[in-house]
Amino acid sequence: MKIVKTIKVMKETVDELRAQGKSIGFVPTMGYLHEGHLSLVREARKNNDIVVVSIYVNPAQFAPHEDLETYPRNFERDENLCAREGTDYIFYPDDQKMYPERYQTYIRVTEIEKKLCGISRPIFLKGVATVCTKLFNIVKPTHAYFGQKDYQQSLIIKQLVKDLNLDLNIVVCPIVREKDGLAMSSRNEYLSENERKEAVCLYKTWNLGKKMIEEGERNIEKIKKKMKEHIENYAFPKIDYIEIYNAEDLSEFENNAIKEGREIAIALAAMVGKTRLIDNVVFKI
Amino acid sequence: MKIVKTIKVMKETVDELRAQGKSIGFVPTMGYLHEGHLSLVREARKNNDIVVVSIYVNPAQFAPHEDLETYPRNFERDENLCAREGTDYIFYPDDQKMYPERYQTYIRVTEIEKKLCGISRPIFLKGVATVCTKLFNIVKPTHAYFGQKDYQQSLIIKQLVKDLNLDLNIVVCPIVREKDGLAMSSRNEYLSENERKEAVCLYKTWNLGKKMIEEGERNIEKIKKKMKEHIENYAFPKIDYIEIYNAEDLSEFENNAIKEGREIAIALAAMVGKTRLIDNVVFKI
Repeated sequence: MKIVKTIKVMKETVDELRAQGKSIGFVPTMGYLHEGHLSLVREARKNNDIVVVSIYVNPAQFAPHEDLETYPRNFERDENLCAREGTDYIFYPDDQKMYPERYQTYIRVTEIEKKLCGISRPIFLKGVATVCTKLFNIVKPTHAYFGQKDYQQSLIIKQLVKDLNLDLNIVVCPIVREKDGLAMSSRNEYLSENERKEAVCLYKTWNLGKKMIEEGERNIEKIKKKMKEHIENYAFPKIDYIEIYNAEDLSEFENNAIKEGREIAIALAAMVGKTRLIDNVVFKI
Repeated sequence: MKIVKTIKVMKETVDELRAQGKSIGFVPTMGYLHEGHLSLVREARKNNDIVVVSIYVNPAQFAPHEDLETYPRNFERDENLCAREGTDYIFYPDDQKMYPERYQTYIRVTEIEKKLCGISRPIFLKGVATVCTKLFNIVKPTHAYFGQKDYQQSLIIKQLVKDLNLDLNIVVCPIVREKDGLAMSSRNEYLSENERKEAVCLYKTWNLGKKMIEEGERNIEKIKKKMKEHIENYAFPKIDYIEIYNAEDLSEFENNAIKEGREIAIALAAMVGKTRLIDNVVFKI
């Protein structure tokens, strides 16, 4: 496994590999890897000649008041985990290379970004769209792997790849969960012991909503109300949003009524103490 | 010469050419070609194995009140001109292919777009940045050619290529002028006989400003005032802007004083009747 720190060397490396006809599986991450990330690396390993993992805490996706400085980092640990999963290259650039002086180009995916996390974190999705486009242009993958935990992010990426005519396949992999159901996230690290116990509320809450739908409830307002009541039983969580949308494009269901045959996304975000957690489920009835 | 109407065929064609190690010179245009465009095609022909010209009136760069519908078009004439200059491929897509239903990804170059044409035509530069990024991803050129007449556009393109880590060289070619000095433009077609006579005012006006600087004037306000007075002698033109900036990034000169050793851009835009014309000069003292 090689660690590549410059854009120039990364480009030269992948240009040569692509010229040899190799497929490149790419897993963009912000590091502090957990089982969720590793499931993406494994998927990339299974289906490509070469696996590239990028580790880069992207400043463009943090607002000034957010946790850029304190975001957990441990490169040595990440390096070992990547090596163990058969990664060929870690791309590990620094800010000066990614956003040099006078950097000013940003990508917006204007409809999808209006929903869910786009409301409380407008900078986040713009930053993700921008850095992923940059990384795709540098790493030139044939396949790039994203976790479903960031469901809106995965839709943003799929949309920009289509709209900007990029040549790669986006693969979205299932959420990996702790035993109690909590979706794995680098930010779970921030939780106190008590918060950690309550953090499972997101999982429990979408399960409640999904069950209601499976049992025949079609009125979205009723379902959301029940979910909201449920989550308010917990001490710590403060809801940011609970939404039920068409999974394909985050559009609203007509007349606020679930429609059979369509993919449904239930998505939640809540502050658990000072930690913002998200979770979702996508299913069909 | 082949005419390619679909993104898929264009991509397959250039992928094969690139795999053979061919260099691709690309000239993106909105058609209705004049000598300015043809000078770009010749430059591309001289320095590349393959020449691709795109002809596409990009709706994303027109505001609702602008001239999208009436923008001059003549594909047959363009086709003959391209063939005569040794073009290998014309890429001639339609709107449905370039901006299919639910299209929503846009690129902003946030500093350069604040100046000059960005003020009266905010949609224009966003549309140009977006369509050029798409075209670069489709045509995968080694070199792309732009005219200096759209000076701000050329800076936007150079900036986004750098910021988004695209692999191509941007070549900016000199403005081609009519005998009296009027910069060639497809929009000159709109001018009445009287307007055409007066349209040369942009050329005359920047010449006046340049001469003042060359003769030692350093006070930018004074130079702009004289230029403004000059252009107001004409009957038709209504000034949109007259600006004197650092040519590199359209930043202002400190204390409104020309600095020797720096590249200077004098840029103008004016309405001549209902036709918006622009012109500029870039020079050093």
